[in-house]
Amino acid sequence: MLIVMHHWATSKDVAQVKKTISSMGLKPVAIPGAARTAIGVIGNQGRVNDAPLRDIKAVMEIIHVTKPYKLVSRDFHPADTVVQLGKKVKVGGTSPFLVIAGPCAVESRKQLMKTARFLKKTGVPVLRGGAYKPRTSPHSFQGMREAGLVLLDEVRKETGLLVVTEVVSPEHVGIVAEHVDILQVGARNMQNFDLLTEVGRIKKPVILKRGLSATVEEWLGSAEYILLGGNPNVVLCERGIRTFETATRNTADLAIIPLVRGMSHLPVIFDPSHATGKRPLVAPMALASIVAGAQGAMIEIHPEPERALSDGPQSLHFKEFEKLRAKIRSLDGFVRKHLA
Amino acid sequence: MLIVMHHWATSKDVAQVKKTISSMGLKPVAIPGAARTAIGVIGNQGRVNDAPLRDIKAVMEIIHVTKPYKLVSRDFHPADTVVQLGKKVKVGGTSPFLVIAGPCAVESRKQLMKTARFLKKTGVPVLRGGAYKPRTSPHSFQGMREAGLVLLDEVRKETGLLVVTEVVSPEHVGIVAEHVDILQVGARNMQNFDLLTEVGRIKKPVILKRGLSATVEEWLGSAEYILLGGNPNVVLCERGIRTFETATRNTADLAIIPLVRGMSHLPVIFDPSHATGKRPLVAPMALASIVAGAQGAMIEIHPEPERALSDGPQSLHFKEFEKLRAKIRSLDGFVRKHLA
Amino acid sequence: MLIVMHHWATSKDVAQVKKTISSMGLKPVAIPGAARTAIGVIGNQGRVNDAPLRDIKAVMEIIHVTKPYKLVSRDFHPADTVVQLGKKVKVGGTSPFLVIAGPCAVESRKQLMKTARFLKKTGVPVLRGGAYKPRTSPHSFQGMREAGLVLLDEVRKETGLLVVTEVVSPEHVGIVAEHVDILQVGARNMQNFDLLTEVGRIKKPVILKRGLSATVEEWLGSAEYILLGGNPNVVLCERGIRTFETATRNTADLAIIPLVRGMSHLPVIFDPSHATGKRPLVAPMALASIVAGAQGAMIEIHPEPERALSDGPQSLHFKEFEKLRAKIRSLDGFVRKHLA
Amino acid sequence: MLIVMHHWATSKDVAQVKKTISSMGLKPVAIPGAARTAIGVIGNQGRVNDAPLRDIKAVMEIIHVTKPYKLVSRDFHPADTVVQLGKKVKVGGTSPFLVIAGPCAVESRKQLMKTARFLKKTGVPVLRGGAYKPRTSPHSFQGMREAGLVLLDEVRKETGLLVVTEVVSPEHVGIVAEHVDILQVGARNMQNFDLLTEVGRIKKPVILKRGLSATVEEWLGSAEYILLGGNPNVVLCERGIRTFETATRNTADLAIIPLVRGMSHLPVIFDPSHATGKRPLVAPMALASIVAGAQGAMIEIHPEPERALSDGPQSLHFKEFEKLRAKIRSLDGFVRKHLA
Repeated sequence: MLIVMHHWATSKDVAQVKKTISSMGLKPVAIPGAARTAIGVIGNQGRVNDAPLRDIKAVMEIIHVTKPYKLVSRDFHPADTVVQLGKKVKVGGTSPFLVIAGPCAVESRKQLMKTARFLKKTGVPVLRGGAYKPRTSPHSFQGMREAGLVLLDEVRKETGLLVVTEVVSPEHVGIVAEHVDILQVGARNMQNFDLLTEVGRIKKPVILKRGLSATVEEWLGSAEYILLGGNPNVVLCERGIRTFETATRNTADLAIIPLVRGMSHLPVIFDPSHATGKRPLVAPMALASIVAGAQGAMIEIHPEPERALSDGPQSLHFKEFEKLRAKIRSLDGFVRKHLA
Repeated sequence: MLIVMHHWATSKDVAQVKKTISSMGLKPVAIPGAARTAIGVIGNQGRVNDAPLRDIKAVMEIIHVTKPYKLVSRDFHPADTVVQLGKKVKVGGTSPFLVIAGPCAVESRKQLMKTARFLKKTGVPVLRGGAYKPRTSPHSFQGMREAGLVLLDEVRKETGLLVVTEVVSPEHVGIVAEHVDILQVGARNMQNFDLLTEVGRIKKPVILKRGLSATVEEWLGSAEYILLGGNPNVVLCERGIRTFETATRNTADLAIIPLVRGMSHLPVIFDPSHATGKRPLVAPMALASIVAGAQGAMIEIHPEPERALSDGPQSLHFKEFEKLRAKIRSLDGFVRKHLA
Repeated sequence: MLIVMHHWATSKDVAQVKKTISSMGLKPVAIPGAARTAIGVIGNQGRVNDAPLRDIKAVMEIIHVTKPYKLVSRDFHPADTVVQLGKKVKVGGTSPFLVIAGPCAVESRKQLMKTARFLKKTGVPVLRGGAYKPRTSPHSFQGMREAGLVLLDEVRKETGLLVVTEVVSPEHVGIVAEHVDILQVGARNMQNFDLLTEVGRIKKPVILKRGLSATVEEWLGSAEYILLGGNPNVVLCERGIRTFETATRNTADLAIIPLVRGMSHLPVIFDPSHATGKRPLVAPMALASIVAGAQGAMIEIHPEPERALSDGPQSLHFKEFEKLRAKIRSLDGFVRKHLA
Repeated sequence: MLIVMHHWATSKDVAQVKKTISSMGLKPVAIPGAARTAIGVIGNQGRVNDAPLRDIKAVMEIIHVTKPYKLVSRDFHPADTVVQLGKKVKVGGTSPFLVIAGPCAVESRKQLMKTARFLKKTGVPVLRGGAYKPRTSPHSFQGMREAGLVLLDEVRKETGLLVVTEVVSPEHVGIVAEHVDILQVGARNMQNFDLLTEVGRIKKPVILKRGLSATVEEWLGSAEYILLGGNPNVVLCERGIRTFETATRNTADLAIIPLVRGMSHLPVIFDPSHATGKRPLVAPMALASIVAGAQGAMIEIHPEPERALSDGPQSLHFKEFEKLRAKIRSLDGFVRKHLA
C-alpha cells in the first residue's frame, strides 16, 4: 500500500500517517519527493483495511499494490537509481554503459593478474572472477573458494580495479564483502531467500542475476528482499532463460530489459556470455543490449579460453574483447546522442 | 552430401560425378564457385555409401552433411543471398535495413489506403496486411480473405508500394501470388509442409516466420523445402518463441539472428510486434535487432490501434512509427560505418 | 453466449429466441437438455449486447462465454461424447479403453499386413500407419503417400481392422477419407485452420493431436473449428509438449487429461510413444494415462523397430506390446471397478 | 570412473587397486556385490589416465563415467535403495507406496494437531508442514520459522507420526534435524550447493525436490552432492516443471519417474499438489504416479483449505483425502500383483 500525501501536507501530517500505520501493526516507509511525500506500507498480508487512513485530511490518495514488490517499483521511486561502485564508478541513470569483464573462475594468480592488467589498459573499471563456483556436479571444479577471494583482494589492491565475485551462501557474505567491492547473487540462487536477506544487511552493491526460469515478477520480488533488508544498491542482470531451444546455451531475453526499466528504478545490465554460450554471439548481443536499454554488460574473457577450467567456449580472447570494448564505447555514445 | 571437386576438374569430370550420383538413385545439384565446383547430393536417407565417388580422381573431398538442410546452408552457398522485392527493393547482403509496416489485418479500404499513403510519405517501401487471419478461435475475426486480397492489390497499384500478405493454405498460393508481391508463411504454418512445397513452386519472395516452438534446425529445414522446390527467394523472420515468461507475448530470441546468419546465406528479418506484444517494447527491440544483425523488420502500425480488430496493443500509432523510422535509418547508417 | 431457457419454456419460446439471435446477425444453436433447453450463440466478436434477449420472459439466464470455444465445452454439452469408430468400436464415455497401434509409417505391404495380423490376434481394433509423413527435413523419408493409402485400404478390407492415418493438407481430406476409417490431424497441423475446416466438412471421426507448444485453450479452439464445421466426431490426443527437458523426446502432460475432461465433453486419448520417445517409458506411461482418465492410447509398434524408417527407438516390439495389451485390459477393468 | 574386478579377485587385489587410485590423487570407494567387487573413483576432473590400473590383473574392466553423477547411478549401485524413515517406515524397493500429507505451512498448534490426528486415524505415517516458507515476495507469509519447528516436534511426540519439513539454509540444518525426522530440500534450493553439502553431513533422510527448470541430469547431480557428503538417505521428489502451459501451476513430468528409476537406485516420490496446483487434479495424478513407478506421494491437505495462508487451491479437504488414501492403497496392491 502506498499513501500519497497532498502537496500541502506538513511533516506533522506525515508523522500522523506513520503512527497510524504502526498502530495497524504495519511498517511505514517515507519516500520524500520533489512535489509531495508518499509513504509506503510494508508487512501486510493481502489487502489492508485502509479506513483509519482515509479519515486523515492530508492523505490525497491510497494506492493498493498487489504486486510481490513495492520498494523496487517505479511507483514507489520514480527516478532512476544510480548505484555507486567504489569511489569513481556508477551504473544506472545516465551513467556511461558499464563494462565488467574477467574469467568465469579465478584459476591462479597469474591468470588473474594478466587479465586485470589487460582490463586496466583497456579502460574497464570492474573485474569479475568466480571464487565459489556453483556446479551441477560435485565432481567438477568448485572454484578456489577462500584462496580465490584472497587473490581477488590482492589484485584489486595492486591494480585499483573494482572486483565482483559471486556469493553462494549466507554465511559467506561477511568474508566475501571484505575481499571484494561488489557481490553477485547467481541465477541458481535468485530465490535463495536467506542469502538475499543476508546481502540486504550489508551496503556493498549487489548484482542480482535473473534465475534460469524466473519470471520478471519473481526477479523483482527477489530484489525486494534485498531492498527491504536495507541495501538499496541492487543492480539487476539478465543472463538468459531456459527454453526448448538448444542452439544457444540459454535464450537471451533482451525484451525484458526495456520492460523492467519501465517497472523498476533499478539499473539493469546484461550478461551476453551466459545468455548465448557461444563466442561469436557475445559481441553482437552485448551491443544489441545497449540499444535495448541495458546500462552495462558483464562479459567473460580469458587469456587462453581453450584452457579455461569452465565456460571456455563462451569466453572472449583479449583481442576480440578489445575490439568489442571500442565498439561499445562508440555505440553507447551514438545511442545517447541520437536514440534517447 | 557435398562433393568438392579439384580446381583443375573439367566440366566432363563434373558430368561424370553427376552421372554417378544419379546412378545411385540420388539427385545431383551443381554449385559452381569462383575457384572450384561443388556438387550437392539431394534425396538420401541417412549416410550414403560414397565408394563409387571416392574412385573419381577429380573429386577432392566428400563432405557428409547430417543436418536437415543443405541448400540453405552457408557450406553450400557461402555468399549472402540478396532477395529482390519488386523492381527496386532488395533485402539481404549489404542492402539497407528493410522496413515493412502495416496493420495486422486488412479491415477496410479506408484503413488500408490511409496506412499506405502514410508509409509512402515516410519512405517505407513495403506494406503488410493480413487478408487471411489464422485465429485460435473460429469465433474470432478470420480476416476479409479474398476481398482483402483485392484491396491489397488495389492499394499497391494506386501507391506503387510493394505488398506482403500471409498465405495459409496450399490452394491459395496461386490467388495470393496474383494479388501481392511477397508471400508470408506464418509461425503456425512453419511446418505445413504442403504449403512450403507449394510456395516453392512459385518465384515470388517468401517471408518464412519461425514457428512458436521451432528450433533453428527445424526452421532451416522448412526453408529447405522452399529452396528445394525451386524458389530461392526466402527471407527468414524471427518473431519470438513461446516460453514460460508471460510478461511479454513471446520471447524475442535475438541471439539466433547472428547465429542463423552464420549458418545460412538467407536474409534474416525481425518482427518486434509479435515478439513482444507490447507497444513500448517495439521500438527498442526493432532497433536492437539492427545491431544483432537483422536485415529488416516487419512492424505493425494502425491508424487507430485502439480500434484494431486484432493486435491493437502491439500496433504503433503513426506518430510513434515515424520517430522509429527515423531512428532506424540513423542507427542503420551508424552500424554500417562503425560496427561492421 | 449461452441462453438458458426456463424449464416451462415452449418450443415457440425457443423459436422466438432463435429468431431474435438471427436478427442480431448471429447464429443460434439449440442444445436440448433433459430439464431445460439452452441456445448457444455463434459468430460474435467479443461481448454481445444482449438487451433484445433479456426482454424475453422465457429466458432464465444469459451466460457470456469469453473462451475461444463453445461447442466443445461441457457448459454447452454436459454429457460425455461417445465417438463411434466403424460399426462396432466406440471411444469416450464409459466405453472400454481404446487401443490403437501400428507403425509410425507405412513402409511396405508386408510390414503392414504382418502388423495387422498381429493386432487382429491381440484383439486391437484399430491400426495406425502414416502414409503422409510431415518431416523436419525434405531430405527425410516423406511417407509412401497415395501408395500408402492404397495399402491401408487393402489391409482394412482383408482384416476388418479399422484404420487411422494422418492427413496433412486440406486437398487430401477427400482421398484420405475414402481409404481409411479415422483421420488424424497431427501436432504440427493443429493450427492449420484450413485443414481443420476441411475435416469439419466430413463425418468420419478425427483424432486431433495437441500441438507441440499448444495451450489447452488453443487445442480446444482447434477442436471448435471442426465441430463448428459440422463434424462432432472429434477425439483429442495428448502427445507430449516441448519443454526444456531433453531426457525425453517431449514432456508427457498427463495432468491436462483430467483437466480437459472437465472442460470438454470430447473423448481424450494419449500417445505414449511420441510423448516419451523412449521404448522403456511407453508401457508405464500408457498405463498411467488410464488412471489419469485417458479413454484410449495410440501406440507405435513395429515388426523390427531397429529397421524402422522413422521412430524406431520409441516403437515397441510385438512381444512387448502383447504384454502391455494384457496389462491395459487388466488395469482398465480395475479402474472402472475400484477407482471410478 | 568405475573399476570392475574379476570374480576371483581377492581382498588383497582390491586393496592394491584402492592404493593405486589414492596414489593418483583420487579417492576410491569400494562397492561390494554378490558376484564381484567394483571400485568407484571420485574426485577426478574429466577423463583419468587409467594406465596404472590397466596393468593390474584382477581388474576386469574400467568404465569411464562422463555423467555429472556416480554414486547415485545404478551402474554404481544396481539394487534399489530402501530409505528407512524413523523406526518403522520405509520407502523404496518393494516397500508399500508411502503417503506423506499435511498443510503447506504450519499455521498454528490447533491446525497442526487437527491434521495430525486425522492422519493418524487414516493410517498415514508421515506429516508434512512448512516452518520456513520460501516466498516470491518478502511481503508474503514467511512461515512460523523456529516456532513452527517447535510445534512440529510437539506433534510428532504426541502422535508418534514422523514429520518432514523444508530446510532453506545451511545454518538451519542442525536445528531442523533436531526437531523433525525427515528434511526436505525444496525446488528453489535444488542447486543451493552449500545446503546440499550440509544435509550430506547428517544421516537423517532428505527429500530432494526437482527444481522448476532442472533437467534430470542436474537433479541427479544435486543428489550426488548429498551422497558424496556421506548421507545415502536421499529420496527424489518430482513436483512438476515450469513450461509455457498456464492451465496448470506446473507441468507434472511423470515420464521421468520410470526414467530416473532406471538411471538411479534412489527412491522416487511425487508431489501432485505442486505439480498441478488444482484440487481436482491431485487425486488422478497421485494415482497415475503409482502406475508410472512412483514409490510415494506427498500431498497437501488442510482442515479448511479456503482459509489456508498458502496453497489453498491445491490442498485437499480431509474427506477428499480420505477417499484418495483408500484408492491409493487399493491401486498399490493391484499394481504389485498384476502389473509388476
